[in-house]
Amino acid sequence: MTANSIGERFRITSFGESHGRLVGVIVDGCPAGLLLSEKEVQAELDRRRPGMTSISTQRREEDRVEILSGLLRGFTTGAPICMMVWNREVDSSAYDRIRDTPRPGHADFTSWLKYGGFNDYRGGGRSSGRITAGFVAAGAVAKRLLVRLGIRVLAHTVQIGEVKAGDASIDEIERNLEKNSVRCADLAVAEAMEEEIRRAMREGDSVGGVIQCVASGVPAGLGEPVFDTLEGDIAKALFAIPAVKGVDFGSGFEGARLRGSRNNDPFIISEGRVRTLTNNAGGILGGISNGMPITCRVAIKPTPSISLPQRTVNLKTMSETQITIHGRHDPCVVPRAIPVVEAMVSIVLVDHSLRMGVLPVALRRAEG
Amino acid sequence: MTANSIGERFRITSFGESHGRLVGVIVDGCPAGLLLSEKEVQAELDRRRPGMTSISTQRREEDRVEILSGLLRGFTTGAPICMMVWNREVDSSAYDRIRDTPRPGHADFTSWLKYGGFNDYRGGGRSSGRITAGFVAAGAVAKRLLVRLGIRVLAHTVQIGEVKAGDASIDEIERNLEKNSVRCADLAVAEAMEEEIRRAMREGDSVGGVIQCVASGVPAGLGEPVFDTLEGDIAKALFAIPAVKGVDFGSGFEGARLRGSRNNDPFIISEGRVRTLTNNAGGILGGISNGMPITCRVAIKPTPSISLPQRTVNLKTMSETQITIHGRHDPCVVPRAIPVVEAMVSIVLVDHSLRMGVLPVALRRAEG
Amino acid sequence: MTANSIGERFRITSFGESHGRLVGVIVDGCPAGLLLSEKEVQAELDRRRPGMTSISTQRREEDRVEILSGLLRGFTTGAPICMMVWNREVDSSAYDRIRDTPRPGHADFTSWLKYGGFNDYRGGGRSSGRITAGFVAAGAVAKRLLVRLGIRVLAHTVQIGEVKAGDASIDEIERNLEKNSVRCADLAVAEAMEEEIRRAMREGDSVGGVIQCVASGVPAGLGEPVFDTLEGDIAKALFAIPAVKGVDFGSGFEGARLRGSRNNDPFIISEGRVRTLTNNAGGILGGISNGMPITCRVAIKPTPSISLPQRTVNLKTMSETQITIHGRHDPCVVPRAIPVVEAMVSIVLVDHSLRMGVLPVALRRAEG
Amino acid sequence: MTANSIGERFRITSFGESHGRLVGVIVDGCPAGLLLSEKEVQAELDRRRPGMTSISTQRREEDRVEILSGLLRGFTTGAPICMMVWNREVDSSAYDRIRDTPRPGHADFTSWLKYGGFNDYRGGGRSSGRITAGFVAAGAVAKRLLVRLGIRVLAHTVQIGEVKAGDASIDEIERNLEKNSVRCADLAVAEAMEEEIRRAMREGDSVGGVIQCVASGVPAGLGEPVFDTLEGDIAKALFAIPAVKGVDFGSGFEGARLRGSRNNDPFIISEGRVRTLTNNAGGILGGISNGMPITCRVAIKPTPSISLPQRTVNLKTMSETQITIHGRHDPCVVPRAIPVVEAMVSIVLVDHSLRMGVLPVALRRAEG
Repeated sequence: MTANSIGERFRITSFGESHGRLVGVIVDGCPAGLLLSEKEVQAELDRRRPGMTSISTQRREEDRVEILSGLLRGFTTGAPICMMVWNREVDSSAYDRIRDTPRPGHADFTSWLKYGGFNDYRGGGRSSGRITAGFVAAGAVAKRLLVRLGIRVLAHTVQIGEVKAGDASIDEIERNLEKNSVRCADLAVAEAMEEEIRRAMREGDSVGGVIQCVASGVPAGLGEPVFDTLEGDIAKALFAIPAVKGVDFGSGFEGARLRGSRNNDPFIISEGRVRTLTNNAGGILGGISNGMPITCRVAIKPTPSISLPQRTVNLKTMSETQITIHGRHDPCVVPRAIPVVEAMVSIVLVDHSLRMGVLPVALRRAEG
Repeated sequence: MTANSIGERFRITSFGESHGRLVGVIVDGCPAGLLLSEKEVQAELDRRRPGMTSISTQRREEDRVEILSGLLRGFTTGAPICMMVWNREVDSSAYDRIRDTPRPGHADFTSWLKYGGFNDYRGGGRSSGRITAGFVAAGAVAKRLLVRLGIRVLAHTVQIGEVKAGDASIDEIERNLEKNSVRCADLAVAEAMEEEIRRAMREGDSVGGVIQCVASGVPAGLGEPVFDTLEGDIAKALFAIPAVKGVDFGSGFEGARLRGSRNNDPFIISEGRVRTLTNNAGGILGGISNGMPITCRVAIKPTPSISLPQRTVNLKTMSETQITIHGRHDPCVVPRAIPVVEAMVSIVLVDHSLRMGVLPVALRRAEG
Repeated sequence: MTANSIGERFRITSFGESHGRLVGVIVDGCPAGLLLSEKEVQAELDRRRPGMTSISTQRREEDRVEILSGLLRGFTTGAPICMMVWNREVDSSAYDRIRDTPRPGHADFTSWLKYGGFNDYRGGGRSSGRITAGFVAAGAVAKRLLVRLGIRVLAHTVQIGEVKAGDASIDEIERNLEKNSVRCADLAVAEAMEEEIRRAMREGDSVGGVIQCVASGVPAGLGEPVFDTLEGDIAKALFAIPAVKGVDFGSGFEGARLRGSRNNDPFIISEGRVRTLTNNAGGILGGISNGMPITCRVAIKPTPSISLPQRTVNLKTMSETQITIHGRHDPCVVPRAIPVVEAMVSIVLVDHSLRMGVLPVALRRAEG
Repeated sequence: MTANSIGERFRITSFGESHGRLVGVIVDGCPAGLLLSEKEVQAELDRRRPGMTSISTQRREEDRVEILSGLLRGFTTGAPICMMVWNREVDSSAYDRIRDTPRPGHADFTSWLKYGGFNDYRGGGRSSGRITAGFVAAGAVAKRLLVRLGIRVLAHTVQIGEVKAGDASIDEIERNLEKNSVRCADLAVAEAMEEEIRRAMREGDSVGGVIQCVASGVPAGLGEPVFDTLEGDIAKALFAIPAVKGVDFGSGFEGARLRGSRNNDPFIISEGRVRTLTNNAGGILGGISNGMPITCRVAIKPTPSISLPQRTVNLKTMSETQITIHGRHDPCVVPRAIPVVEAMVSIVLVDHSLRMGVLPVALRRAEG
């Protein structure tokens, strides 16, 4: 059960519950000497905040972060950084009945079973998407470190239900990412995606999608095969996000259809450095970054919380019954998952940068 | 770089090189009292062995396993189990030139860069598929343990290039798996898959595919969120297999297209136990097994080794050049990856069974 | 630097600083279903609190603990337990000058060097004894779990400066431990110990001592050789306590003088169980508990903070200078280290109980 | 039970049994580009080899090491290094009866209990001192790496039974260490120590002692508080050596008697660097190396194997009985433990050097 920490040299520990007093995170292993304030962390948290658009849940959380340790005069000290977001607008009354009648597609049943019925079931407890507020806070620290290495991590929506986006360059992603409520870089389809979500919403239903994440500026050499491959560590981190059910890299599942002659990326020399002409490998060969952008796709299942009545069981009486979920839920978590995906990828990249010695234990005074 | 171990309570450590003296594995954490012999391990290794069919490489490795520690009078002792396969038919001459001209799609370039040119490049060294012989040996031990829990892990080919198999029940998979050289449970398409591979082979090319893995009999409760989810740990283990570029669970990437009302699995009561009517979750909810079969899909890229000439660079002269790869290679690694996928999934399931206390530290004398 | 966590199945993560906003701890891996409240944790913290007797520092910390996660209706949920103690009476002004002139015997110099001068030096920052408040809080949870296994962990003072205590039975320790301010079970020498401390105090000096810890009721079988021996894991945990400079088990350094015939503990049968006649092994053979009480001794160095002037250097000017430390310090930390020693030993015992499956992942409803 | 690995960035995995086919070790995390051959490893193993002097066991093991992976053309490749020593002269017949009648002071009873009677009891199995041959082989690799950092690790005997050595400088230790069979740097008492051992031997008994280890040239900054302190990690590694029952650093247990004014090490400037005038801290402050030599003492219990009859129990009949141990045993393991202590300290120092980035992942071509 000791599984609320991830990372070897940059390790985050998650704590808190959806309807408990807070959600939080400890970041251990952040190099000393990084200029950091609540402002930068807050900016990332704001991107994850609910209630911002017509297509997200109306639960309004202020999600105000506090940094409670690991800082002195604005710089990280090398000590663990504790960050917390207090839960304010919590209404647990709606959750009383899910205690015995688990919601389909949720962790209610498995948590109840694993923890002998003692789990905090309110609002999904530890399995709630709200827990990712801590991931995002930790990711904000990671991103600050990546800036120093010239690494940029960007995620964007490439599919909502049946609506798929066309390819986008890194520049386009950066430019367009925040221009629409679905966070789709292909402006031509963004509206269709929004409509896909609204339609599901109107029908009391939900819809899934696919996120692509691109990390540019990643130096070659990160990743430690045979087991701590960059793919493996990124995938594991991403599967911690509720609703993620698939991860692939580069051409991924598409590449499985291809011939080797088409999928292999030819090596070329560009500006005096070894590059590849294409990037079907998603920037990773043999589990190690090759200097090209790292690209991965993340499959997000449709939000399990829907208003339509669903079949379920009563765990007390061990009989079948129905459940109708009330309350405020995102009809599609894809847009809000974008900053969480960025956070997890950033955290893994910092961890491997520290492992490789690309990032030092103490940064120089230079930053200020 | 200390990344050649995986698992917390059942930990395997991989060592050896493709063209070195051996490949091997240490299994640490196997409960004492398991009846084990080289015979059972050999049986799994034989499934991975090359040169068995017309569609695989003609490198003939006897792959004879030796168990060198951890056994006494046929039973495991609780001590680390060291298993080794000596390399016999090794011809490294063909690899001399890849030292400076990395093969596209291979780890040659990234390993060269990461290890300062000191890496064992012969036959791909540590990045060779041959390393997975150790995984399979460890997996054989894991499978023996899973038998005691009533867990059965089966993988089969569901796609080769453009050819896709239809759905198959667990019984069909078990019955048909070894009936054709592509290890496809859908006998109706197996031949078309074989032809797809032969066609690529004739053209000096290669082809990828998709493997599905099904673990039945898994008790509910395995998996440790938020970070050591069953999905995350299985995915990480699978990405250690060379050529794996994607992993999804249950409806996975397909599910991303669906509505919640269609993707959620209704809970039902069946034979007095809580089950789900469908299994779009792939047996995992909130990172914890729910008692349904665990299903995942693994994307295998086309073998990077092809006979067609390819663009690459000369690392010494930093100029562009061409490479033509000679030697014996699988035009498609999917069939031979099947036992490796089963091994990695089995290893993770044993690890989590030990974490949960479902498997004890010492088995009772009963087995013999 | 990611070194603020310890334990495999019962893992604690320490955070906070002596003069920061708080000190805290996350306990991950506590079985679900343990009845726990702030009251029990507070009781342990109170034992560590300064300012309670004439021989301890007059810094008065209320040390009020808050449990912020991991509990629902009084029971642990299986989720991480976050516990915090807010720092209240903090006066950092006295520490401004130690920034450049490190105190002899303290971590000021090494922390400054390791963290590039960014470390929180106020009050010793992360190296302060105050950090152990978090250890004690985690230890309180561990102790609650050990009660269920019938394990009792008691530490007591056996030496202050030159004054040594005589042997004490477990009953005597339990009965006398809190009867005097030095926490010495041998009431005959307690007063002499107190006088030893007062004398050092009067002279502006400090004094060290030795603590013995006894864990009774420990089942045989805990400990995982060859590396995760019970001795190794307990010792490592104890060395996290500032001022600890030595640890031995059973006859320890004394036993090194002995003959084998004298030091070996004969096996006997007692009440139908295998026991040993003597306990020179300190309850551990081959790194594994043998069912006898675990006994270890912990060497505590004299508090480095003394009022006498001391030689040191100025790190800015790189010249030699003198320092006189003002402020409130314990002339001897031995008595206050007692609950910390108990906490660390308890934490390791719970960790190994979980590893062995002696403690389950979820406790039964029984406790309430 | 997964406890046969130690180290985070330089991790060794131990395997093999005293009377099995071999003892071995995997070294994972050794930087690529280190010139290494069996010769250097053999040299260290020879120091540990039995049967070399009149005061050690007459079991004659050739202990010939083979390096089976991780090397190419004489240089490490960054891959795991597998090293093995085949067991040759094995006579297990003497051990048949210890299966049921555990030897006092040995791990026979606890291993039997922990592993359900399946443990390899022959010659002590995994608990035998013979396992440390693998530690020493790994230590030889570590020492080669430390040479590059200018770090020298030396251990020597400072006490045998009641005979204590006087202080010795690092130069004296280096010069005298191998001059006598007890490995005592104080030549004046070496003979008395030898006589102490011979006397115990003549009486069918054994004797313990104390080893001091000194690591010079250690850069300041190694060690990661609060839990991965240098003391904690060194102590944990040392407790993996059978017979070790105590570890202290610097003034250690002696320092517990002292006043702070006497135990604190004044800081001075020497040759432009911060040093301390004395070294009661043993080179470690706050868990971090301070640039002074690291000094620790290790208590070695008297060999539990003695010829005198001893009380024990019969585990099958659960009745009391006697045991007389025949066969070849060291009357004192202290001299042979010297290279093992050096190995463990070296391994921890390399691990922390890699953590701090003091050692890179790939060494430059320079060495050859």
